[in-house]
Amino acid sequence: MNNFIFQNPTKLIFGQDTISQLSKEIPQDKKILIVFGGGSAKSNGVYAQVAEALKDHNTVEFWGVEPNPKVETLREAVALGKLESVDFILSVGGGSVLDGTKLIAASIPYAGDAWELVLDSSKIGEIVPFASIMTLPATGSEMNSGAVISNLETNEKYAFYSTFPQFSILDPKTTYSLPAFQVACGVADTFVHTIEQYLIETDCSPLMDRWAEGIMLTLKEVAPKIKADQTDYAQMSNYMLCATMALNGFTAMGVAQDWATHMIGHEVTAFTGVTHGQTLAIILPATMTVLREQKGDKIIQYGERVWNIVEGSRDEKIDATIEATKRFFGSLGLATSFSELKIERSTIDELVERLASRGVAFGDKANVSADIVKEILYMC
Amino acid sequence: MNNFIFQNPTKLIFGQDTISQLSKEIPQDKKILIVFGGGSAKSNGVYAQVAEALKDHNTVEFWGVEPNPKVETLREAVALGKLESVDFILSVGGGSVLDGTKLIAASIPYAGDAWELVLDSSKIGEIVPFASIMTLPATGSEMNSGAVISNLETNEKYAFYSTFPQFSILDPKTTYSLPAFQVACGVADTFVHTIEQYLIETDCSPLMDRWAEGIMLTLKEVAPKIKADQTDYAQMSNYMLCATMALNGFTAMGVAQDWATHMIGHEVTAFTGVTHGQTLAIILPATMTVLREQKGDKIIQYGERVWNIVEGSRDEKIDATIEATKRFFGSLGLATSFSELKIERSTIDELVERLASRGVAFGDKANVSADIVKEILYMC
Repeated sequence: MNNFIFQNPTKLIFGQDTISQLSKEIPQDKKILIVFGGGSAKSNGVYAQVAEALKDHNTVEFWGVEPNPKVETLREAVALGKLESVDFILSVGGGSVLDGTKLIAASIPYAGDAWELVLDSSKIGEIVPFASIMTLPATGSEMNSGAVISNLETNEKYAFYSTFPQFSILDPKTTYSLPAFQVACGVADTFVHTIEQYLIETDCSPLMDRWAEGIMLTLKEVAPKIKADQTDYAQMSNYMLCATMALNGFTAMGVAQDWATHMIGHEVTAFTGVTHGQTLAIILPATMTVLREQKGDKIIQYGERVWNIVEGSRDEKIDATIEATKRFFGSLGLATSFSELKIERSTIDELVERLASRGVAFGDKANVSADIVKEILYMC
Repeated sequence: MNNFIFQNPTKLIFGQDTISQLSKEIPQDKKILIVFGGGSAKSNGVYAQVAEALKDHNTVEFWGVEPNPKVETLREAVALGKLESVDFILSVGGGSVLDGTKLIAASIPYAGDAWELVLDSSKIGEIVPFASIMTLPATGSEMNSGAVISNLETNEKYAFYSTFPQFSILDPKTTYSLPAFQVACGVADTFVHTIEQYLIETDCSPLMDRWAEGIMLTLKEVAPKIKADQTDYAQMSNYMLCATMALNGFTAMGVAQDWATHMIGHEVTAFTGVTHGQTLAIILPATMTVLREQKGDKIIQYGERVWNIVEGSRDEKIDATIEATKRFFGSLGLATSFSELKIERSTIDELVERLASRGVAFGDKANVSADIVKEILYMC
């Protein structure tokens, strides 16, 4: 096990009818900027619950943070926050709204432009305290310090790290009305978050391995049930808890991490606009295939413990495990190849060229160069 | 899944040669009370590392917190802390030293007597910030807000809750010189902590079930290896991480908890002085046996997933699972019955009489009355 430092101060408030707790979680004297997405908060009833809970607070609303939040939009929220001198920010929506909020929170006290903070987090100084009502289980943003921000102008999409939400309220009932495709993408995203922190070496941390496998086993059990009935409270709760636990550091103590699939996925999404979780579902099996020698032992452990694949030669087990992974993503209702999404080879070539010019080296061993990315993407 | 609130702010600093990080974790202007146990910190080299790390800090030492820390001893530390006007406390040792530190931290700013805070935690006001160097993996005290304190005069032993350590430093190398019996008791304690938060209903939270099973499976794998070689860094790390994760709330989200075995165990330890982990190892199988109807479904799930017990009738599976649990504790080198420890039936009778007069009702269903405790203890 590697040496590590773990700390996660976010207060997680989980369960039905918990949005009303907002009123006591945010001090009465705060001026609150409430950040929303495209409007689903009004149709699913969350807006009304938030408005009721904060009816005695001083609030100002910003609407319109889009999926894969764009710095162009967030600059408007930053301007509003500065103008109104807000000293608390509440994100209401999914991971994109919260990711955007993290950049807004760091940018309001900053004199320069928000994109500078994405490119260089050492410039982050004071951060306006923020919290979230999380209504789309997927990114884990509700209990971590990371965010992913896009820049339309430069066609770029990068991760950046600021600080943790003070609290996050998760009411599984708010997820009932999500589009099924969003839920499927969220399950895929959660699965891939878990495996990025797992598919490295065997025996680095047997406990973290068990916990990562625990998330994947739970997703495997839960996914068909929520596909059949998205208003099954118990199962949506199970899924929502998995999504939070998959990216809050709880399975990352003392272990190496990979993230090659995510890094490639971000590039593909930035280039093509394909939803993040859908992109990952296609790329992960290809990454496993291309890196099958390097990751073979762990793929076999994963196959055995998550998919009960115990028979056959080493190569047969690896093949069967990759196939089971692909089949799982297919069972969610997601596409399993770029051709289904009409992504052309020329797009891939352009993307790879750009990565080559940046000299990328993804993965835990920093050996996933632009050439390897090309191999992976051609396989998709 | 039940509604829940989870928050754990402790910073966990884990790995070899991490004690030196003390100097930057505690602000230079603090007056530090360093609390020690009986002297092993000097023989295992931890004292020298702490002294080196804090050589530029202002410190005062208190020695002598004993196993099952006694309020009589802690009062002396409180008096010293008040006299010296300390504003930070560092616990160096095992769970008993840290548990004692939690009461000291709450009692220094309190005008009354420390035992009042154990009896009524609503009296806790300001708490002196504290942290730990944890050198005995067992109680999980390094990442939770609980403590267990004994009172010699009244022969009582109670849990109390204050706040979390600011940080805890865990260097697995500091455990190499622990007596083998202490390590065995620590493994048993960790195992029972886990199962107290697990052996309730099936299907309340499949993810929390997997994580609890993950700790128990890891302990099962690790225990024989550390029994064979207590200086195996990887295995002592695995065990140490399990001990912390077994009682920091990470497996308790949204699930009911039992704690009957612990409540009974505390009484037995208070009466007989038998080490906590040893007591639990004897009581747990008896609790499972007496409550086999109520807990049958979960016992079967636990038996299947942790001990691979998949054949036989319902009763046979339950029997085999209880037997496997008992065998595991025996394999650690612990006694598995009171008779081995020469605990008399008259002692049990006296203890049960006392519980009856208090009208106890232990367990998640509050149905473990003094009569049921008697049945459990007679079986031990």
